Amino acid sequence: MTENDLRFAHRLADAAAAAIRPYWRSAFSVESKGDQSPVTAADRAAELAMRELIDRDRPDDGIVGEEYGTSREGARRTWVLDPIDGTTSFMAGRPIFGTLIALLEDGWPVLGIIDQPIGKERWAGRTGDGTTFNGNPVESRRCAKLDRAVLATTSPNLFSEEDGHRFMALAGQADHKRMVYGGDCYNYGLLASGHLDIVAETGLKLHDFAALVPIVEGAGGMMTDWAGEPLHAGSDGSVLALGDPARLEDVLDVLR
Amino acid sequence: MTENDLRFAHRLADAAAAAIRPYWRSAFSVESKGDQSPVTAADRAAELAMRELIDRDRPDDGIVGEEYGTSREGARRTWVLDPIDGTTSFMAGRPIFGTLIALLEDGWPVLGIIDQPIGKERWAGRTGDGTTFNGNPVESRRCAKLDRAVLATTSPNLFSEEDGHRFMALAGQADHKRMVYGGDCYNYGLLASGHLDIVAETGLKLHDFAALVPIVEGAGGMMTDWAGEPLHAGSDGSVLALGDPARLEDVLDVLR
Repeated sequence: MTENDLRFAHRLADAAAAAIRPYWRSAFSVESKGDQSPVTAADRAAELAMRELIDRDRPDDGIVGEEYGTSREGARRTWVLDPIDGTTSFMAGRPIFGTLIALLEDGWPVLGIIDQPIGKERWAGRTGDGTTFNGNPVESRRCAKLDRAVLATTSPNLFSEEDGHRFMALAGQADHKRMVYGGDCYNYGLLASGHLDIVAETGLKLHDFAALVPIVEGAGGMMTDWAGEPLHAGSDGSVLALGDPARLEDVLDVLR
Repeated sequence: MTENDLRFAHRLADAAAAAIRPYWRSAFSVESKGDQSPVTAADRAAELAMRELIDRDRPDDGIVGEEYGTSREGARRTWVLDPIDGTTSFMAGRPIFGTLIALLEDGWPVLGIIDQPIGKERWAGRTGDGTTFNGNPVESRRCAKLDRAVLATTSPNLFSEEDGHRFMALAGQADHKRMVYGGDCYNYGLLASGHLDIVAETGLKLHDFAALVPIVEGAGGMMTDWAGEPLHAGSDGSVLALGDPARLEDVLDVLR
């Protein structure tokens, strides 16, 4: 993975943003997939735009896309694409959904982009390098004690009953009054920029979390699953992001 | 209440926005009030800027402000101000908090503004006139059946246990998969613009809901408390907003 890959990833994000913008807050058709999640024309147009660029300029790299599945399975390098993470937010007209782009090498995320095409906000990170927000370096913030931590999660309805109880235990130990709901990938960008301390979610797919890892870790934070293990293509979908890695054991203790 | 009052309300919103913008996503001091809600320098600066304009240009009108309380109690016309509604959203760096400005006549909201100073988004409505978003007329959308309704609420933690059960009953009848959390006043603006169908909350103060009423109703929607009664200065803080007034009885049936 090179500086050149990062430049290419920015081009992917530009292409997705151009495809998405015309659909936001406009009337458009909504279809249902088997899992009932809303799929928009924007979602498809953005993924196709990115796949076209990859097919042309990175013909040996694999692709895993949220909408159109896997191409060149088994490639050492794989682009993982989620054209619209936060579909409900998008459909409700909120400018806090995002396009997620990750590059995996041997199953490990080494490069990530979160792009918010309406506010024109973009976080980018790659392993061994710092994270940027709209081109400027960002750092996650220190958090001296768990009870001062601002915690975020997209929705309490997305947990299984058991995970919901574990999450609520964590919420009870964190700064309950300042907890925020909603936000999807945008929360992880805000954590990288030092505005939030913890994000905890479960049931995420590879395309939901792969891009977040280099961004959070490049900003000085840490990402693991709920057992404290690093995230890769085979992870179970439980995701924990910490602005301050020093709080990892406190959080894992509560989640156990 | 005149067209002139609406122009004045826009000036108040401009003044608040100018006071707020420098503080967003910047380091600033956080104090705690008795109720532990975060209070920012932005909150105070914005309310002071608005109160100064009212004292100067509307010296007979009363003021009820979230930060600085009541002036000229008993005035027939009262400006109700919430400089930053969605303080947790503001502090987490999300561009979906808002400044709320309402004019009450004899305790009834007749004019409202929701201003989002980062995205420069503004909803404005007054009784007997249509609602605008950034100057353009907007309409809430029809919703033929409750199970197609997109429901929003800021946080499940803000309900009492009993109200939480009533809310979850409503969530179970609405389109559960597309439900959105977080958002505060911004949800009501999105409802007025036809992107959401129902917002249900409890425990709101007058400054949290007064501005929303003329905006939602001017867009063709409806606002009541959870018993179906119109909202005014003496309401109990339970709030229901509907894009389609035809769904009111369905919703009240579930909440009962």
